[in-house]
Amino acid sequence: MLEARILDKLTEIVGKENIATEVQDMICYGYDATQMEFLPDAVVHPANSAEVSQVLALANREKFPVFPRGAGSGFTGGALPKGGGIVLVTTRMNRILRIDTDNLVAEVEPGVVTEAFQMEVEKLGLFYPPDPASLKFSTLGGNVAECAGGPRAVKYGVTKDFVMGLEVVLPTGEVIRTGGETVKGVVGYDLTKLICGSEGTLGVITKIIFKLLPYPDSKKTMLTVFDSIDGAARAVSTIIKGKIIPTTLEFMDHATLTCVERRFNLGLPAEGRAVLLIEVDGDRDLIEKQAEQIHALIKPLGLVQFRVAKDAAESEELWRVRRLVSPSLRDVNPDKFNEDIVVPRSRVPDVIRRIEQIQQRYEIPIVNFGHAGDGNIHVNIMIDKTVPGQLEKAHEAIKEVFQAALDLGGTMSGEHGVGLAKQAFIPMELTADQIGAMRAIKRALDPNNILNPGKMLPVE
Amino acid sequence: MLEARILDKLTEIVGKENIATEVQDMICYGYDATQMEFLPDAVVHPANSAEVSQVLALANREKFPVFPRGAGSGFTGGALPKGGGIVLVTTRMNRILRIDTDNLVAEVEPGVVTEAFQMEVEKLGLFYPPDPASLKFSTLGGNVAECAGGPRAVKYGVTKDFVMGLEVVLPTGEVIRTGGETVKGVVGYDLTKLICGSEGTLGVITKIIFKLLPYPDSKKTMLTVFDSIDGAARAVSTIIKGKIIPTTLEFMDHATLTCVERRFNLGLPAEGRAVLLIEVDGDRDLIEKQAEQIHALIKPLGLVQFRVAKDAAESEELWRVRRLVSPSLRDVNPDKFNEDIVVPRSRVPDVIRRIEQIQQRYEIPIVNFGHAGDGNIHVNIMIDKTVPGQLEKAHEAIKEVFQAALDLGGTMSGEHGVGLAKQAFIPMELTADQIGAMRAIKRALDPNNILNPGKMLPVE
Repeated sequence: MLEARILDKLTEIVGKENIATEVQDMICYGYDATQMEFLPDAVVHPANSAEVSQVLALANREKFPVFPRGAGSGFTGGALPKGGGIVLVTTRMNRILRIDTDNLVAEVEPGVVTEAFQMEVEKLGLFYPPDPASLKFSTLGGNVAECAGGPRAVKYGVTKDFVMGLEVVLPTGEVIRTGGETVKGVVGYDLTKLICGSEGTLGVITKIIFKLLPYPDSKKTMLTVFDSIDGAARAVSTIIKGKIIPTTLEFMDHATLTCVERRFNLGLPAEGRAVLLIEVDGDRDLIEKQAEQIHALIKPLGLVQFRVAKDAAESEELWRVRRLVSPSLRDVNPDKFNEDIVVPRSRVPDVIRRIEQIQQRYEIPIVNFGHAGDGNIHVNIMIDKTVPGQLEKAHEAIKEVFQAALDLGGTMSGEHGVGLAKQAFIPMELTADQIGAMRAIKRALDPNNILNPGKMLPVE
Repeated sequence: MLEARILDKLTEIVGKENIATEVQDMICYGYDATQMEFLPDAVVHPANSAEVSQVLALANREKFPVFPRGAGSGFTGGALPKGGGIVLVTTRMNRILRIDTDNLVAEVEPGVVTEAFQMEVEKLGLFYPPDPASLKFSTLGGNVAECAGGPRAVKYGVTKDFVMGLEVVLPTGEVIRTGGETVKGVVGYDLTKLICGSEGTLGVITKIIFKLLPYPDSKKTMLTVFDSIDGAARAVSTIIKGKIIPTTLEFMDHATLTCVERRFNLGLPAEGRAVLLIEVDGDRDLIEKQAEQIHALIKPLGLVQFRVAKDAAESEELWRVRRLVSPSLRDVNPDKFNEDIVVPRSRVPDVIRRIEQIQQRYEIPIVNFGHAGDGNIHVNIMIDKTVPGQLEKAHEAIKEVFQAALDLGGTMSGEHGVGLAKQAFIPMELTADQIGAMRAIKRALDPNNILNPGKMLPVE
């Protein structure tokens, strides 16, 4: 518990109406999209970097932990106040400061909701591609802190690829700028990319400069069904080798299709074992041609259905298959562990086979879908926690799924991060020397270990 | 001077034939593309990361500086052994280890020459876009350490954007891997991007995993001449806003054109005040269409000539204007300071105007060309060092050029780095707190300050 005099000082900094200390006001800042929950000692809502700086300076003097938080939509507990301390919520800093249509640059505060930003730039004919599934409520600050991805990453890259510069409050309270507004810049170390994906452990993001693109002319959606996982996986490599980089290459395995079909009866072909939802964007004539090329390229790979959307309405119809995946999963089992392993594209069939074996060994349904173009597979381990032993089995199965990804040259997380959820598994992926270098950086920037302590790196 | 017993240990590590201590053997490892020169105490050529690790461990025990070096083509003295110590040359580690055509990934050692790598991947229909002007002799390790750019960065990005993972020997001798072979990955801090552009101060790169692209189908080159700088600069924004991202948008100002024309008489229109050399690549039909669109978009902007290459030979002819720039410059004056400031694209005319004023004030010819699509202008300050006072004037003028870039929201270096050449100017661009954060990282990873000491950050 924080002493009353510290709470008074926090109140002085952010104002009475921007601090909460009552349980009923704090409870919703203690959980996220995981099933973990921790109660903080206080929740503060600073208005700007100066207030964030004062909060962190105080935390260093008084040695209490500060947990930065956006919308709390994270999948790994990165914003959760484990061990107590204060939650610092960035959602009051929610202005789009400017959109520069000449230089294709925007400056925003961290609390702006991802989709709201996308809609604003689209009004000006511009495009901010990163599209995490949480975009209707997640904040841009959270997206940057976690380096969020999404289906469009195949062609456009992840959040990090669009961050040109930041304003960051360092753990010790200094407010610095990193990067800038130019597309090139090599003066000093790249603190921008170091902060991106550091999960709120190296600084609190208070402003973001994003690179934008011109909004693509048109897009074309194709739903393709294959008679095997291998066919679908080879389709991915074949298309890219055919010099076409689609905007999205979304994959659904047989278990996923069975779920969706059982519940929604979309009439997918019975012999279908895997679906690729493919979208291309750009010049109108080019994408027509690319759709034909894609058809020709993937036809020999066991293609059992190829549907091309003629217009936006049909495109929505095809995307429906993908969107219905999450609502269908609960029919399998009530509780879900959603992991997001990545393997090199060509190893997708191998990893799916390994996961099938794990599924059989543990007798737990595992449903796989995700961003095949990146080799980023969402592995959904479906259990019923009320059945004794299932939770333990799930944990073992998750560990084996991670090992499968690592054995195939992959990683245990492509876009969800580590947070608390994967922390214990980190030594499977990183060596002691790698962790040592990361710890040295954390200690250098946060000597009192007050900013989001006990996250990401294994606890010492 | 290093003691004989240390030289003996170094000899044990790398072998007798891979260490030099005689002046005549070391002299060519003491300079680069700047006009600075320093003699090291020894030059070692390790064969692999294990030897590099032993050298660095020894350096930490015995407290001597180690300066990593590729081909020594740097423009800022980043590899120079100022203050003495040993130069560690990476050119023996020069194998392309593998090119994975399924996953569009290659693994190389740092000593591979950039162009040699490009040619190897092109044989397989693949593409490694970064194209620094030094590509015929610079090494990939040096490119990564400096985060090299080049004309194609407009569309494809800089070296950093193609580095997926590294093997790095940390300053204290530990060999670690960073990143990986997957296009996404968020486990731990992004050490890969931190090492890229760190100018050899945070680690010695011993392996690089590069992302590759399919080689573009075709390309189209256009030489466009404008009656004003503003016209050329507005053309850049207009094309990009018109949803076309050219591969290159190379700019030459009037002084550059005058130099080239005087020497080579290419018949450029007399009313031309600025040239943009534009190249688009991709689908054959699309680039035809884009060339027409570009013409229509830029016609109203004071276009006085528009030439489109019909084939590869004509394309070479158009590129000749750009390639003749460097050989022409020496007619202006024998000595050159080549700076590489960057401003937001739309501020190119403003910075050119500021540079014209600086030129008039100091009465020194300044010739500007470079990558207008990135706002990255190569500012060439031409002097004759034998004329008393010119060197001092040049230094003052450089400082003002940097200030102009910074005033316009830019940076003093887009691709050359800081090294020794710009170190003294760093406090113009970075605040004490920014420098403090960078120093903290340097100290955390290199507590004995043995790896490329006294570079990049201002000397304390």
